[in-house]
Amino acid sequence: MTIERVAIVGLGLIGGSVGLAVQQMLPGMTTTGWDADADVRQRAAGRRLVGEVCDTVAEAVRGADLVILCVPVGAMGYAAEAIAPHLEPGTIVSDVGSSKRSVGDALAVALPDAIVIPAHPVAGTENSGPDAGFPELFRHRWCIVTPGKNTPPDAVDALTRFWEGLGATVEIMDAEHHDLVLAVTSHIPHLIAYTIVGTASDLEDVTRGEVIKYSAGGFRDFTRIAASNPTMWRDVFLSNRDAVLEVLGRFTEDLSRLQRAIRNGDGDTLFDLFDKTRTIRRSIIEEGQDDARPDFGRGDH
Amino acid sequence: MTIERVAIVGLGLIGGSVGLAVQQMLPGMTTTGWDADADVRQRAAGRRLVGEVCDTVAEAVRGADLVILCVPVGAMGYAAEAIAPHLEPGTIVSDVGSSKRSVGDALAVALPDAIVIPAHPVAGTENSGPDAGFPELFRHRWCIVTPGKNTPPDAVDALTRFWEGLGATVEIMDAEHHDLVLAVTSHIPHLIAYTIVGTASDLEDVTRGEVIKYSAGGFRDFTRIAASNPTMWRDVFLSNRDAVLEVLGRFTEDLSRLQRAIRNGDGDTLFDLFDKTRTIRRSIIEEGQDDARPDFGRGDH
Ligand SMILES: NC(=O)c1ccc[n+]([C@@H]2O[C@H](COP(=O)([O-])OP(=O)(O)OC[C@H]3O[C@@H](n4cnc5c(N)ncnc54)[C@H](OP(=O)(O)O)[C@@H]3O)[C@@H](O)[C@H]2O)c1
Ligand SMILES: NC(=O)c1ccc[n+]([C@@H]2O[C@H](COP(=O)([O-])OP(=O)(O)OC[C@H]3O[C@@H](n4cnc5c(N)ncnc54)[C@H](OP(=O)(O)O)[C@@H]3O)[C@@H](O)[C@H]2O)c1
Repeated sequence: MTIERVAIVGLGLIGGSVGLAVQQMLPGMTTTGWDADADVRQRAAGRRLVGEVCDTVAEAVRGADLVILCVPVGAMGYAAEAIAPHLEPGTIVSDVGSSKRSVGDALAVALPDAIVIPAHPVAGTENSGPDAGFPELFRHRWCIVTPGKNTPPDAVDALTRFWEGLGATVEIMDAEHHDLVLAVTSHIPHLIAYTIVGTASDLEDVTRGEVIKYSAGGFRDFTRIAASNPTMWRDVFLSNRDAVLEVLGRFTEDLSRLQRAIRNGDGDTLFDLFDKTRTIRRSIIEEGQDDARPDFGRGDH
Repeated sequence: MTIERVAIVGLGLIGGSVGLAVQQMLPGMTTTGWDADADVRQRAAGRRLVGEVCDTVAEAVRGADLVILCVPVGAMGYAAEAIAPHLEPGTIVSDVGSSKRSVGDALAVALPDAIVIPAHPVAGTENSGPDAGFPELFRHRWCIVTPGKNTPPDAVDALTRFWEGLGATVEIMDAEHHDLVLAVTSHIPHLIAYTIVGTASDLEDVTRGEVIKYSAGGFRDFTRIAASNPTMWRDVFLSNRDAVLEVLGRFTEDLSRLQRAIRNGDGDTLFDLFDKTRTIRRSIIEEGQDDARPDFGRGDH
């Protein structure tokens, strides 16, 4: 199974980055794209995010071997319905959504004749829209692919090679496990960051100006995450509800324990946790998922 | 009141940075230093963190116009007792501790004959020890000074000019308000980051390897904060207990509200919060406390 024509639906941060990356790293492939928003289509054409930005979704997906839906998780079902009448049987349809079980279900229902293989590149920034993408986004990052039990292996192989071509390393996982792992490593961190930024801006005794002024003490790093795309994140929490609530329950228990330790002046409990968490940081740096340099190595982009 | 001789007690990240900064930016001043740990003293001498690393605290503070205590908050009282017998009356004693009310009280008790002016440069990194400091640490950062009601104004002015000389902007505040503001902008963010990193590493269904592998989705940014000096942070939470518990209570209420919104599928509540928090991020960037560049502008150091 060879992929020669890729259609990208949704030309924001992720869709745009996929388009740019394919053109740069897999130059044999043809790319087309479409976005529901006419302004986004125009900007995408201006930045040449894909080889051809089409005026209709029908044109964009016509003859595609692979269609990748790069829209918010809550819009995946609608996007799938929009492409359904225009696909040739046997087309691979994938996506990049941040939660996988609900997306997989929605695509399977809307696209009974396609080969549906959900996927999630674990790479992103806090920016969004057609100006945010860049071709190196997926390099040295993981892409989790969550095929169903009956998905043809050669289609999974083709999608794997595609993501590897963009610089990612592919990991196959079942959708349910994906949703739990990402609840821990991404969804809950975002929820917490949004919450603390909200809390800080609503206090009566500390002004917003003071919060901003003294943000270098730690708060600042949370505001970056809490500046992420609101539509995307609303959809993530609604679509991955069970795993998010499960991990949130654990977090809340652990936080209560620390709260008690502070109230009781129990320094040993605090020290032991603070000491343990350092080792995780070291492993992340060793595995190349972050960088100890002051700029996190992000200057490498 | 002119400061000509500065003694630094505690030669880790902050003490070392002060020493390097004074030598670079205020070359008319003499610097001496001491640390309770002989290995730290040796390393500090090797890196020339101060003009002279002394073998005893008595030597280090002899003839000083300004002594700055740069030890963990919980050790401030001991450090003050150690310097007390060797100070000339009227010496200014300041510190850099991350909480101010309890430190101010401890210094006042131990040093009845000195001019005590607590201070807190709002600048730091997750690293610690005598190898971590660098002279630019305080540049374009705030330094909060919390004098008592009876502190001589010319001493406050002298300390203010000192910090301005290192590149910081000084803000005068009362200690209690400092502790509340910093609970929001620094202490609670650290507590939350430590907690979520701990939670993630204790789950049964998600391995530590998976957490590390997929940390680029948001978790990674928390691990940096949660790699901070455990002794320092234990002391911060114990010494700023009231303000930390107060802000933590607000945070927990807000988190419960979001939890409920997720459980009930209430997307509007989620969207409204996620949208609001973006504006705070923008203000932080506008005020120069962070940077929208992918490396946060940290490459500027
Ligand atoms: N951002 C990240 O860090 C990240 C990382 C990994 C995966 N993801 C996933 O990637 C997907 C896209 O996220 P993104 O960050 O690229 O968001 P984005 O920059 O906002 O791009 C999404 C684009 O899809 C368009 N769109 C919305 N509904 C559509 C529809 N029914 N048909 C066609 N186009 C539609 C949007 O138009 P409008 O803006 O006008 O609505 C927008 O241009 C999401 O599922 C997200 O979970 C994101
Ligand atoms: N790190 C930050 O981001 C930051 C920011 C602003 C303010 N602060 C404050 O700055 C202070 C120092 O923090 P830091 O990050 O510089 O910590 P650090 O790098 O660990 O340095 C503290 C040094 O003080 C030494 N020490 C401990 N007790 C002492 C005593 N009684 N007398 C003399 N030396 C003693 C320590 O020796 P051992 O290591 O052998 O114990 C260590 O070398 C703390 O009060 C902290 O709250 C920190």
